[in-house]
Amino acid sequence: MNDSSRHSGKLFIFSGPSGAGKGTICSRLLAESDPERIALSISMTTREPRTGEIDGKSYYFVTREQFRQKVKEGGFLEHAEVYGNYYGTPKDRVLEQLEQGRDVILEIDIQGALKVKEAYPDGIFVFILPPSMAVLRKRLTGRGTDSMETINMRLSKTLSELSYIEEYDYCVVNGDLDEAVKRVKSIVIAEHSRVTENIQELLEQYKEEE
Amino acid sequence: MNDSSRHSGKLFIFSGPSGAGKGTICSRLLAESDPERIALSISMTTREPRTGEIDGKSYYFVTREQFRQKVKEGGFLEHAEVYGNYYGTPKDRVLEQLEQGRDVILEIDIQGALKVKEAYPDGIFVFILPPSMAVLRKRLTGRGTDSMETINMRLSKTLSELSYIEEYDYCVVNGDLDEAVKRVKSIVIAEHSRVTENIQELLEQYKEEE
Repeated sequence: MNDSSRHSGKLFIFSGPSGAGKGTICSRLLAESDPERIALSISMTTREPRTGEIDGKSYYFVTREQFRQKVKEGGFLEHAEVYGNYYGTPKDRVLEQLEQGRDVILEIDIQGALKVKEAYPDGIFVFILPPSMAVLRKRLTGRGTDSMETINMRLSKTLSELSYIEEYDYCVVNGDLDEAVKRVKSIVIAEHSRVTENIQELLEQYKEEE
Repeated sequence: MNDSSRHSGKLFIFSGPSGAGKGTICSRLLAESDPERIALSISMTTREPRTGEIDGKSYYFVTREQFRQKVKEGGFLEHAEVYGNYYGTPKDRVLEQLEQGRDVILEIDIQGALKVKEAYPDGIFVFILPPSMAVLRKRLTGRGTDSMETINMRLSKTLSELSYIEEYDYCVVNGDLDEAVKRVKSIVIAEHSRVTENIQELLEQYKEEE
């Protein structure tokens, strides 16, 4: 009887600008958590698998027709088209895990997170912030994958997206990674200590006892 | 820029039935935290100091007249009379610490917590629960200070007070003390990561930078 909400898992959405480090934070959170208690949401996509990618682990790889059918059935928490390929978060997979009492981690960009919030407002929305715009610029430049123009575009997108932070429950500044991971873990633990509707069930146990 | 709410502290109210272990949990939380960041609220009382008790540390000791004057001025977050003595939580001391950016811990019974909630709804209310009524009975009996009659009265009071749990934000079951302390610490960290009104200030810094 250590957890008032042990009956169902919680959906944690980690989101934020590109370069804020949400991927690294999610990996650390998962690596340092009990896999029976927490799982990563796996996206579905129509793009071709790259070398080494495993179906059902990296992504669920489907055809465009299969994807469109699922969209039609309302089978996604969110979906989007990126460079001609579809990507989406399959609702059934997420709900299945939650019902089994497992938390689900969703790592997603800000537009995606806002769509998830519409579909699943009970989720816990965490915005990962870089410590400063200067650091973000440095991180994006350091990747060496994007042109200066792309980086400038990303930074200006970041600034405009910051205003969505008020839609989120939590905000974690990723300056020191260990500190950020500690905060994220604390958020998970704290959310499992919240007084929720199923507290009544717990209280009934106390009353029956006496 | 590691903490979006570094400008003002937060008031944490730890409350629950007698024997749930809220005192032990608060002591551990304080002992394991930076004293610059978190402080215990010290009560004011009209009772005589006992040997070893220090004014301003154990309690603020005042006369009945001083106490009544403070009540009249609305100077308490809550106050109560117990066995002919007055006890209260001085509002000015708490607010002073919060303004200095320090969190304040308030360890208080359920009736007191409900009064604090009226006076300071921004507080974070944590209900400490014993793992079961059987364990609570054992703890109260083990103290050896109360008669069977008193213990039975306490247990029945506990059962009726459990319904107030819905007024609280969090609920921590104190079965394993280490686990309970970890949860309480996580709640403190998580609350400091919440998206609050002063997030705007943080965002302005990002915008000014670019």
